[in-house]
Formats: sequence, C-alpha cells, structure tokens
Amino acid sequence: AQLLGPRALRQTWPTRTTHQHKGHFGHVLIVGGQAGMPGAVLMAARAALRSGAGLVSVATHPAHAALLPLAQPELMSHAMDDPAALVDLIEPATAVVCGPGLGQSEWARTLLETVCVSAGPRAVVLDADALNLLASSPVDLPERSVLTPHPGEAARLLGTTTANVQADRLRALSALVARSGRAVVLKGAGSWVGAPGERPSLCVAGNPGMGTGGMGDVLSGLLGAALAGPMRAGALAPLVGGAVLAHALAGDEAADRLGQAGLLPSDLIASLPNIIPRP
Amino acid sequence: AQLLGPRALRQTWPTRTTHQHKGHFGHVLIVGGQAGMPGAVLMAARAALRSGAGLVSVATHPAHAALLPLAQPELMSHAMDDPAALVDLIEPATAVVCGPGLGQSEWARTLLETVCVSAGPRAVVLDADALNLLASSPVDLPERSVLTPHPGEAARLLGTTTANVQADRLRALSALVARSGRAVVLKGAGSWVGAPGERPSLCVAGNPGMGTGGMGDVLSGLLGAALAGPMRAGALAPLVGGAVLAHALAGDEAADRLGQAGLLPSDLIASLPNIIPRP
Amino acid sequence: AQLLGPRALRQTWPTRTTHQHKGHFGHVLIVGGQAGMPGAVLMAARAALRSGAGLVSVATHPAHAALLPLAQPELMSHAMDDPAALVDLIEPATAVVCGPGLGQSEWARTLLETVCVSAGPRAVVLDADALNLLASSPVDLPERSVLTPHPGEAARLLGTTTANVQADRLRALSALVARSGRAVVLKGAGSWVGAPGERPSLCVAGNPGMGTGGMGDVLSGLLGAALAGPMRAGALAPLVGGAVLAHALAGDEAADRLGQAGLLPSDLIASLPNIIPRP
Amino acid sequence: AQLLGPRALRQTWPTRTTHQHKGHFGHVLIVGGQAGMPGAVLMAARAALRSGAGLVSVATHPAHAALLPLAQPELMSHAMDDPAALVDLIEPATAVVCGPGLGQSEWARTLLETVCVSAGPRAVVLDADALNLLASSPVDLPERSVLTPHPGEAARLLGTTTANVQADRLRALSALVARSGRAVVLKGAGSWVGAPGERPSLCVAGNPGMGTGGMGDVLSGLLGAALAGPMRAGALAPLVGGAVLAHALAGDEAADRLGQAGLLPSDLIASLPNIIPRP
Repeated sequence: AQLLGPRALRQTWPTRTTHQHKGHFGHVLIVGGQAGMPGAVLMAARAALRSGAGLVSVATHPAHAALLPLAQPELMSHAMDDPAALVDLIEPATAVVCGPGLGQSEWARTLLETVCVSAGPRAVVLDADALNLLASSPVDLPERSVLTPHPGEAARLLGTTTANVQADRLRALSALVARSGRAVVLKGAGSWVGAPGERPSLCVAGNPGMGTGGMGDVLSGLLGAALAGPMRAGALAPLVGGAVLAHALAGDEAADRLGQAGLLPSDLIASLPNIIPRP
Repeated sequence: AQLLGPRALRQTWPTRTTHQHKGHFGHVLIVGGQAGMPGAVLMAARAALRSGAGLVSVATHPAHAALLPLAQPELMSHAMDDPAALVDLIEPATAVVCGPGLGQSEWARTLLETVCVSAGPRAVVLDADALNLLASSPVDLPERSVLTPHPGEAARLLGTTTANVQADRLRALSALVARSGRAVVLKGAGSWVGAPGERPSLCVAGNPGMGTGGMGDVLSGLLGAALAGPMRAGALAPLVGGAVLAHALAGDEAADRLGQAGLLPSDLIASLPNIIPRP
Repeated sequence: AQLLGPRALRQTWPTRTTHQHKGHFGHVLIVGGQAGMPGAVLMAARAALRSGAGLVSVATHPAHAALLPLAQPELMSHAMDDPAALVDLIEPATAVVCGPGLGQSEWARTLLETVCVSAGPRAVVLDADALNLLASSPVDLPERSVLTPHPGEAARLLGTTTANVQADRLRALSALVARSGRAVVLKGAGSWVGAPGERPSLCVAGNPGMGTGGMGDVLSGLLGAALAGPMRAGALAPLVGGAVLAHALAGDEAADRLGQAGLLPSDLIASLPNIIPRP
Repeated sequence: AQLLGPRALRQTWPTRTTHQHKGHFGHVLIVGGQAGMPGAVLMAARAALRSGAGLVSVATHPAHAALLPLAQPELMSHAMDDPAALVDLIEPATAVVCGPGLGQSEWARTLLETVCVSAGPRAVVLDADALNLLASSPVDLPERSVLTPHPGEAARLLGTTTANVQADRLRALSALVARSGRAVVLKGAGSWVGAPGERPSLCVAGNPGMGTGGMGDVLSGLLGAALAGPMRAGALAPLVGGAVLAHALAGDEAADRLGQAGLLPSDLIASLPNIIPRP
C-alpha cells in the first residue's frame, strides 16, 4: 500500500491556465435531499463549489429546491417531482454525486437508477443512502463509479458486520473493489482508496473531530468536483486519492482553528482554500 | 458548596481517541419550536453541534421543520404533525432536550409527555416551556432528567415568588432537587447545580451581558451534547456542571470580544471552540 | 445648540450590574414589514438586539413572520393577520418601533393606530411609512413618542418642500417639535435631536457612505433598544441623543473598515459592539 | 486600444460629498430570477449594494420574491406575476439590469420587452438570458444599453462560432458594437469594452479562478451601480470600464486570499470594499 501525499493534491488540482473558463472546470450534479432533508445536499454542493467546480447543480425534492440558492446563491437547483427530468440534468454534467440525504423511498430508488442508466462515461460518486439502496437491491453501476462507504455501509454491502470490516480494513476494501468492480473509498480512521488493478492507497491525515454527521457529504462534493474537473478524462484513482486527502487535511486545518469537539462539516468547507494547492 | 472549575470541563469533554466516530459522540434530539417560533430550537441545536454531538436532530412544528437545515445544514429536522412519530426519533437519540420555543399548547404537552414516557435511560434536559408545563400539571420525569429553571420558572415550580427564590438561591435549589428527585440547574447570576445525594456546585463565571433572550436555549443545547456524549453512562452532575461552566465562560469570552450590551446567544455559540478543552 | 458627545453614549448605556437580567434590559417590539418587505424589520430588529435589548419581538405580515427567526434566531416573530392581536404583544413590551417596511395600506394604518392607542407610557419610535401615514392623516401620538423623519418625510409632515427643510434644518426641527409636541430626530448630514422644552442637540458624526436604503431602519432599532432599556423611566431626549450618536459613530467605524461606497446598514449593526461603551 | 487602469475606478466612484444622500447614489433595479433560480439575482443585487447604489430593488418570480430580503435585508423585492407591474418599478430606478437567471420563457421575454420599451434615458445592462432572448429574436434596445456577452453569447448574437469570436476578440467586439449600436463588454480572459465612436479598452486584470458560474451576475450588478450613480448623466463607456476593472481586480484580490480553485462570486463581492477607491 502507498500513502496519499502532496502529489495527489497537485494531480487533482493542476495549475489553471489563462484561457480556461467555467467549461474546463466541469459541472457537478448533486442528486439527493428527500423532503425535509436539504442539509446534506447543501453541504455537498458547497464542498463542490469550494473545490473548483465550474458549475454546481442540485436535483432535489420540490419541497426545498427553490430555497437552496437563497442559502448559497451560486447553486442552480432543480425540483425533481418527475424523476424523468433528471436525464436532462445529467446531460450537461461532467460528474454526478448521488446519495446525500437521498433517503430510501421509491423516489430515491428511481433517481439512483436513472443516474446509473444515464451516466454514460461520466464519473458517478455513490454515497450514503445510494449505498444503502445498492445493498438492498443491486443496480448496474456506471463504469466510472466511486463508492464511498463508511464501515457500517461497507458491512451492509459485503453482507458482514461492522466489526469484521474494521478488523481488517484493507481486506474489506479489496472485497468491495472485487465485488463492485469499481473504485472504492473505505472511510474511517485511516481511509483507504482502492480501484480495480490499482495498488490501494491509505490516507493517514484526519482526526476524530471529524466524527460528526455530514462529514461524508463534504467528501462526496469534493469528489464530485475532483472528478468533474480538467483531469476528468484520466485515471480515476489518483483523483479520488487527492479528494480524500484534501478532505482529511481540511479537517486537520479546521481542528487546529476550532478544536476537535464541535468541529462541523461547514468548517471543513471553509478550510478548503487553505488546502487546495495554489499556482 | 463547591465551585465549578477547569476539571469540570475536562470531565465533560475528554480527549478524543483515534478510532472514535460519530456514534461515540452521541445523538442529541431537540424537541420544541411551536408554529412561528423556530429560533429557540435553532440556537439549541447549533449549541449542541458546537459542543461535540455526533448528530443533532430536531423534532419541531411542520411550519418550519424543512427550513431549519437551510440555516444550519448539519441539522436533521423532522416535522411533528403527529406526536406519535416522536417515539421513533427518540429511539436512536442518546439525549433529549425538550422545551425551547415549545409553547404550552396541547401539541406541546403531548410532545413533553411522549419524551417523558419514552426516554428510558436517556438523559433528558427540560427547559423553558417544558418547565412551565410541568409547573401547571406534573408529569413523571425520566430518571436521568435535568431541570434548568431561571428564577421565575423556579418560583412557578415551587409555588412561590421569584423574590423568594432569589433571597436564598441555594435553598431554592435544594427544594427543587428534593421535590423533583432530579438534577437541577438554577440559572441566574451565579448558577447553581444540584442533584440528589450530591454536594451543590456554584458557577461564578458569567456576566450581565448574558441577560438576553435565548441564552437559556444555548445552555440546553450544550447540556444535550454533554449528556449525549462519550461520558453519558457516568454520573450526571459532573457533566451538567461542565456544561454550565462552559456556557458561562463562553459568555465571558464573547463579552471580551463584543462588550456586554448587545451580546447575543449566537455569539456564545461562536465562542465555544475557545472554551471546550483541546487535546 | 449643543453637540452630542461621549457622555450621551454613557447615559444611554450605563454599566450593567451583576444581578440585572433580561427584564432590566427591556423588550422592544418592532411593528412593520408589509407583504414582500421583511428586510426593514429584520434590520431594525438586529440593530435592537446589538444595542442591548433583553428581548426583541417583531409584529409583521404573515407572509414572512415565521421566516425571520431563521435569519436571526434571537427574534420572536408574530404574524399580524388580525391587527387586534397586536394589543397583546404591546403589553409586555417596554418600547415600540413602528414603521420599517410598514407600507401605507389599511393593514398598516390599523397597526399604527393600534400602537398609538395602546402604547400608554411606553416609548414609541415612529419612522418611515408610519410618518407618511401621519402626514396624510393625523393620529393622537403617545406621550413618549419619537419621530425620526428624513428631510423628505419632514417636508411632508410640515406641508413644505424638502429644499425648505434643508435651507434651515434647525428651524424645521423646531417646527416639527412644536407641531407634534413630541421628541424629533431630523435625519440627514448633521442630524438634529429636539424635544419640547429641551435645547436641540446636533450630531456631527456620520458620513455620506450612510446614504443607502435601510440606514434609517438601523437607527429605529437602536432607538427602540435605548428607550426600552434600564434608563427608560428617565428623560427621553438624552437617550435619543445617545442612540443617534451611536448610529453615526457606527457608520464612521464601518466606513473606516469598508470605505463609503457600498457601505451597508448591516455593516453598521456589526460595528455597534465597537461603539457602545463597555464597563 | 487602451488599457483600463486606476483612473477608470476613480471616474466611476468619485469622492462623495457631505450633503449627498441615497438619492444621489442611484436606484438599481435587477430584473431576473425565473422560478427556482433566485441565486443569480441575489448575487447581482448584492454586487450592486457593495458597489455604492443608494437603493437596490429586484423584480423577480413570485416563487421567491419575498424570500430574497431574508438573505440580504437591504434589498427591496417585488413579485412579477403581472409583467405590467414592472413599468411602475422602472419609473423610480436610475439604471436597470435585465437577465440574471431570467430564463427564456414567455414571462422572461415579456419582462425584457417591458424593460426595453420603458427604460427611456436610463442605462440598461443586458446580460445572460436577456442576450439569448435577443439572439433568438431582436428587440429595440434602449439608447443607453450595455450588452455583456461571454464568448458563447457573443457567438450567438453574431451568428458565428465561439471559436471565431475567440480567434479575434477585438474584431468580435467591434462587430457587436456595430451591429447593436450600443456599448458592449466582451467577457473572457482579457475583457474588452467598446461603444459606438469610442476607442476600445482592454482589461488585463483577472484570473482563471473566475471561471465559475455566477461571476457574470456579479459584473452585471456592479455595472448597474456604476451606471445608476452620481456620474450617470455622463458618457457611458468610462463607467463601464470602471466596473469591468473593479470586477477583475476584486477577482484578483479574492484569489490572493482564497486561491483560484474554489473561488466564488460571493468572494468577489466581499472583496469590492478593497477595490473601490476611498476618499
């Protein structure tokens, strides 16, 4: 196994050149947020904005779709009363994040299945309830998918216990990669990144202050921006590693400022400008 | 009587260890916020988030439930049109705060009674309108309850006058503990903490800039996080003391920054990272 | 005429003593905000909170009443579908501000008349559309009223032109005081404060960066807090002078930070902690 | 061609004098924001506020009109269910911005046509969807119009390709000016400013971190404030140049603070006080 280090950050966020515009930096589409649950998509979308996406759109429940841009005016937000409309939103996107606050209703499953059928060559980050839906009933995954389970979600995907996953995290990672045939981030203290045919990578940054609900939503947004951006045509695993490392380092930077207890996902988003490499 | 000091903070917020995750830091459920009154639950929930809770949920009126996460995306918010649904929310919680902005309607009383019936071994913080409801018609309190009256609420609970409470605050505290058989915080200039069989503690921090509506909501959220967290299995009174002291010190830190006049509960929440001990 | 100086600030904001609580610092009720216009009441209410009010309530249009506390959780907000309900809100208030964003509809006039009939001995700040309503059809003013016209509103109240008001501002002030029999702030470059039987005071602080819509709403909230607070039983004019000076000094402090062009009323509110005297 | 420099800023934002009030600094009306798209108008309006407008109003879709002032209380917001009502809002405005988040529906076209018919001598900034509507079906433009296409929009207006526009940007600018007979900003790396009978100006400030959705909305708000303000009676091109330069310099200042990747339009707005000249 190899450790994730500064080179991963530079690969994911290369220096911008003068004539690049928002089209080069990609368009992330976040799919999630069942009725009453707008927070997770808001955090994922903000993380994507702070990670360099040229455009960030949200496909979410009609109950709050029109309200999200009042909290973050850079967002474009679309009400998904008819999941068929999702296909038109996927078309201009260069990466899709599916899962934050998605829930496990029929509405949620239809959105997940539409993402998987329509993604084509786009990178797709599957997190949170998208993983729970996959665990309960499999779906054909897009070729450039990344699964980001925490140990409990990993256990559900593997049909085992959280304790078993934690007892040998590298073995659990390998099993997840083998079973899904896709890139996987196994979250937790010491996150692992794996992908078919790639040597696994370990992230040794991060701290237990990151044990707060919503930290995973920030990672999914960060991954969306990393995979949507100018390096999107290249290999998946290095970009995933860069995003995982940036997330952990932002957590460490935020904990230096604010301490570990009470550290919030929003604090990590605010720390990203201090982590993402500059020209 | 003993004075609350730095040891109380360290007992309530021990150093985190590497393999702890959000499950260790507990899940606080805030119950309150009648129609038109979302502010108190928002302040309590934010205080709980900034005090180290792993997860914070809110059970509140349908009129604003879906809007709270737009103001604070880390919150999970649930509309309580049917108070029976509250039972399912209490199940995963490790501490419950009941009262902020609750009002005294039938809806409010049903929520309070559901909390008291369903809390089981969980710590329950009873504040504001929950105390007024208790004063008008008693309810069997969960074993690990904490009552947090200000002098006016204490007078109503004891069937006496505010002047009588203030004339001998330690005696009023003892009477409240004796009558309820539960832990009590008697708020005011020099807050007292008492519990059955425990020596009362006095908090000598704090300042008159804290005389603004909503300061009590911040304390209730802080208590929720302290009682939901990794030390939740132990004795109640030291954790309560730690939260009371952190609240007062945050008020002093915020007054140093901003002065006393115009000091707001939101300022105390922003000061918590400077008060809660770091590794 | 006398100049407003530091002594005015200290009179309005005396040092707090240990046993004072939110009841001592007063309860400001802001009445305004027609449908679609919540901004003015939000600014007035925030200014009142940052000026030391113990409690701040808002009586406003049902279209947005429940949303204001999401933007500022310390506020208590009440929907005025039935203006009769306003009487119950005035009862616990110690000062009332009427006018910000009020409009000039029948709904607005009924609220203004209810305030004037029910205020009793409370101080009442009449601003913006409340002044326009008074200009078009007089109302018996509460004894402790303060009128805060800008030159255009003053002209309407006096039945003259803005140019005439500006040609001799001290004379316009005296005419307004004589005609209304109440305290008056004539706003503009060099605000004047007058009251029956009192020597007029002049404020020489402030800058043209304060020429932005909403600056008057901040002053009305500041006045509300000054008149609701611990000095509320005393003479009106010195408290009014203290609030007018604090507003101008906050404008100067904010312009030092941010420049004059683009200076916003919200910036003045953020500057208040640097202006209001500390113990 | 000439380069835009510090003199352009000083022409657009002259030193304020003591007796100027909000009337002198102008009233910007922002027209845009179809259902579900409030973010673009919010950013344009905030930019106008931070650029010195005395008043900023928004004419937008009823779905969110009443919510915008909760996010930015200085705004006055009007629901455009009946586009005829727009005429009354144009009357007190001294400059109009039309286009941010406008969409291309019948509602959008009616608003655009109403602006063009009713603007009279007011400056009108046409951006985003207003330009797309113009490209699909021409409208008589007000005499003091400014068109602000990015290269893609410029190509649509000229009936050519983006590559052709970028191959000779100065020629594209001249063609846009000739065809429209109006002032034009051709955005992109090295923005050009042109107007009939004027020598074109080039902006060499700015950076590729500005390749994020919404940056154009900030420019349109800045232009609105520059054209609505005290210099509004004079030549158009120097004011446009000052606004374009301020936008680029704010982008550079924000990138110095936050890096290029993840730079947001809201960051530019926050940088404006450091760019606009001070007395």
